[in-house]
Amino acid sequence: MSAGIYAARKKIKTLLIAKALGGQLGEAWQIENYLGFESIPGLELAQKFINHLKKFSADIEIREGESAAHISQLEDKTFEIATETNKYLTKTIIIAAGASPKRLNIPGEKEFAGRGVVFCATCDAPMFGGKIVAVIGSGNSGLNAALQLTSYAKKIYLINKYPDLSKGDSAYAEKVKNSALIEILNSAKIKEIKGEQFVSSIIIERGENKVEEIPVEGVFVEIGSAPSLHFLGGLVEYNQKNELIINLENNMSSCQGIFGAGDTTNIPYKQIIIAASEGAKAALGVYEYLKNK
Amino acid sequence: MSAGIYAARKKIKTLLIAKALGGQLGEAWQIENYLGFESIPGLELAQKFINHLKKFSADIEIREGESAAHISQLEDKTFEIATETNKYLTKTIIIAAGASPKRLNIPGEKEFAGRGVVFCATCDAPMFGGKIVAVIGSGNSGLNAALQLTSYAKKIYLINKYPDLSKGDSAYAEKVKNSALIEILNSAKIKEIKGEQFVSSIIIERGENKVEEIPVEGVFVEIGSAPSLHFLGGLVEYNQKNELIINLENNMSSCQGIFGAGDTTNIPYKQIIIAASEGAKAALGVYEYLKNK
Repeated sequence: MSAGIYAARKKIKTLLIAKALGGQLGEAWQIENYLGFESIPGLELAQKFINHLKKFSADIEIREGESAAHISQLEDKTFEIATETNKYLTKTIIIAAGASPKRLNIPGEKEFAGRGVVFCATCDAPMFGGKIVAVIGSGNSGLNAALQLTSYAKKIYLINKYPDLSKGDSAYAEKVKNSALIEILNSAKIKEIKGEQFVSSIIIERGENKVEEIPVEGVFVEIGSAPSLHFLGGLVEYNQKNELIINLENNMSSCQGIFGAGDTTNIPYKQIIIAASEGAKAALGVYEYLKNK
Repeated sequence: MSAGIYAARKKIKTLLIAKALGGQLGEAWQIENYLGFESIPGLELAQKFINHLKKFSADIEIREGESAAHISQLEDKTFEIATETNKYLTKTIIIAAGASPKRLNIPGEKEFAGRGVVFCATCDAPMFGGKIVAVIGSGNSGLNAALQLTSYAKKIYLINKYPDLSKGDSAYAEKVKNSALIEILNSAKIKEIKGEQFVSSIIIERGENKVEEIPVEGVFVEIGSAPSLHFLGGLVEYNQKNELIINLENNMSSCQGIFGAGDTTNIPYKQIIIAASEGAKAALGVYEYLKNK
């Protein structure tokens, strides 16, 4: 959305294609580190961003509900973007496709998805009122999920594969430690999710082969996210995390004319304020690129 | 301020030294490209940032009214920051000192500073009610200054050294072109500012030695800005624009332990949203750096 605003203000003829505006932000709980907003729910901040973007609707065409299925480069170096329903030709593209929750890839995860195993705390926490749950992951998303759950669940296990809570912000870590409802299991790895119709327990390993079974009714998987850029095929270079590699000065990828911004790229920190900045940089990068062509 | 918030949330023991919080932002007119705020006066956005920062005052000590006069590195690799009144020892420093308006360096500029020659349109535009003025510069700050002046001055000359208005955002350029009060002089260079007690005219050169004298009562110098990092001496490397060179991944300078953020650095685009992001990146860079020491 930031890229859209900057492109519109530069009067670049711009089409914005998005399955849904807001992305991961809409799933975030309470945002307290986006400069200018002391504390705001993710969904509300997303709506402010959407309103801001739509103020420029005279200068940018927005196609919500569509998504890029395949991008190819034509002989004259322009790009063709195929969505589920349309084809578009363009000289430049900004990939700002965000990222999706990573999976544990352990037995039971797929089987019980939606039947106790969930990937979005903000969406699903309220369904676990009075229940015992486990949160897997101790980065900011894991800590946040645990904190959110204190409003609903009767007990929350935080399954942390590290020896302490130094992965996320200390501000969150302290709140987690101070909560009487949260039990932190450090140096613990989840091995399996068990149940019948619904999740009934998890198997964890602590230290040297010390295996435990813990009864839980819900498992919140919060181990970070990864981009899904299959639609770009071999046009661009990726790093080991499958992120789009960009030049951090002007946000251009290894393919001339394709730019990237935010969580979808190799920018080291995935933060809302950083993604907003990267969108602006990418649009300004596109502007310079088109001017010099 | 963004660096301060991120450092506070990471519970890094942090001191924030600032002559005045807000910096250039407080002098900006109407901000329409900081994602989340559709249109907000610079001073008002600065106040939101300050309020946000001060919410973390339990975790960050703020010294307003002080500024770094000299920074040196001690034998044990820590740094000593000398301000006008105090000395501080620290393991890491984030330089987020912004930039100051650039000067024309032509005859009359210094002589008539404050007597018709001004460097901050937002501060001084209201004093030129009913007068004829010149704005020097056609980047976003020049265009913005001209637009602001339409509320006060009776005629505004925009002195633009380029052949067209492509330096700034097209959104601003179009408003400037559509204003009946603004006369754009393209490919025009200012050579001298003349007057007696106050400014009375400017000498400009257009094309090949075509010199003109234009009667004006005010000159707004809006030709960009440059950082002023004299207090860092030879500790770090600078680029040709005198900007602090940082690694764009973690914001560290050539000197281990000194980081930079925003307009003070070689980040190519000087934008509020980008500076806010860079502050966050620098604080996260410091956190990683201290963790690995």
